[in-house]
Amino acid sequence: MNLLLLFDEDFLPDGTARLTGRRAQHAREVLRAEPGELLRVGRLGGLVGTGEVLENTAEALHLRVSLTEPPPPRAGVELLLAIPRPKALKKVLPAVASLGVDRVVLVNAARVEKSYFDSKVLAPAFVQELLLQGLEQARDTRLPEVLVRERFRPFVEDELDALFGREALRLLPHPPALQPLASLGLAEASRVVLAIGPDGGWVPFEAELLEAHGFRPFTLGPRILRVETAVPVLLGQVALLRAGA
Amino acid sequence: MNLLLLFDEDFLPDGTARLTGRRAQHAREVLRAEPGELLRVGRLGGLVGTGEVLENTAEALHLRVSLTEPPPPRAGVELLLAIPRPKALKKVLPAVASLGVDRVVLVNAARVEKSYFDSKVLAPAFVQELLLQGLEQARDTRLPEVLVRERFRPFVEDELDALFGREALRLLPHPPALQPLASLGLAEASRVVLAIGPDGGWVPFEAELLEAHGFRPFTLGPRILRVETAVPVLLGQVALLRAGA
Repeated sequence: MNLLLLFDEDFLPDGTARLTGRRAQHAREVLRAEPGELLRVGRLGGLVGTGEVLENTAEALHLRVSLTEPPPPRAGVELLLAIPRPKALKKVLPAVASLGVDRVVLVNAARVEKSYFDSKVLAPAFVQELLLQGLEQARDTRLPEVLVRERFRPFVEDELDALFGREALRLLPHPPALQPLASLGLAEASRVVLAIGPDGGWVPFEAELLEAHGFRPFTLGPRILRVETAVPVLLGQVALLRAGA
Repeated sequence: MNLLLLFDEDFLPDGTARLTGRRAQHAREVLRAEPGELLRVGRLGGLVGTGEVLENTAEALHLRVSLTEPPPPRAGVELLLAIPRPKALKKVLPAVASLGVDRVVLVNAARVEKSYFDSKVLAPAFVQELLLQGLEQARDTRLPEVLVRERFRPFVEDELDALFGREALRLLPHPPALQPLASLGLAEASRVVLAIGPDGGWVPFEAELLEAHGFRPFTLGPRILRVETAVPVLLGQVALLRAGA
């Protein structure tokens, strides 16, 4: 944990913050924060700064808070992600939060097992917990929005344009394609949407529907990657190309 | 599993292969391979091709093997990796194998907990199992070499040059640096060594010793990433820059 995240409900009327639970325990047992020490803190959705420890007891951590800096810049990227198996989702969600992704739409696909929808990993509270871990890691304060859509075709046909906007560059890593990612004009893109299929890939109908909705296919190379590896690989490459590499 | 890996000991004198255990079970229960079907196979360290199912029973999977294609090209990258916590290592090793890394030196560092050395994850059989998972995923046949070094300074001072060679471009993702990765000449590098520190980073002594041994520091940006996220992000970026992006 590289940042203690503060929530609205932590703040007292005098502007100090009083934390309990896991965060207070971390400050006490891992950071061993003594009164007078400065901890790095951030307010969920807001600025980052320091918290001076006023008191650190078994009950609570009491901080005098000074929030002065913006969190790190956004990646400008959204993901359309076929629902991965639960073990993979538990790795992907903290990673995408730590990499500054703005939104993740978890969508059904032909090769998504139906049982994944019943996984506790998709419960909003569990999703939020995984995202918060990623923010604490990367010293960010802004939660990615996570949506779950159980029907692929209605989502793509009826909702996708309004959600992602028409100006974003839409990209589809898809094995048959030959174009490399570097040829798709990322340096000029204001925003990017990446459509990442399940292990086993999008079926042809899905890839064709995405291409018909403006997603440009590209090759990731001859290696087939697990979704939890492909996501950080692709986000790293997109970040590099958007920076003008 | 996108490739059934065959070992020398699977081959019978007539050139067919007889698999038992986990791989046979996978072929029977997941692939449901019937006699006459072609499965994608590869020989550990060798070529990839097809295996025609001769028999698929509860005891064994019997294949007529035809190995004709080379596995995917290597990444040309080696990692000097501070030993991550066991949960992270279990994610990193399959990922590096699937990304075609040639060698991983797991090295001690000041911020590596001593208990990690006793983890079963570092046992050679466990390491090999994790690497094989990555090969099966990426349809590769070549195992990365994994070395464990318990003393950082003697490794860097006495062994590193001979192991990695002097012509490889040595890179050090290190927060204080300002140079971006794209400025370090990757397109011209024949080989690359990446020195990735523990969660919490290399301590100054370690970073200075690595810099004194030719490692060029660069910035990953303002976000602090977990090692299991940083490794695929960096390998993706290195691959893109080596391809001349």
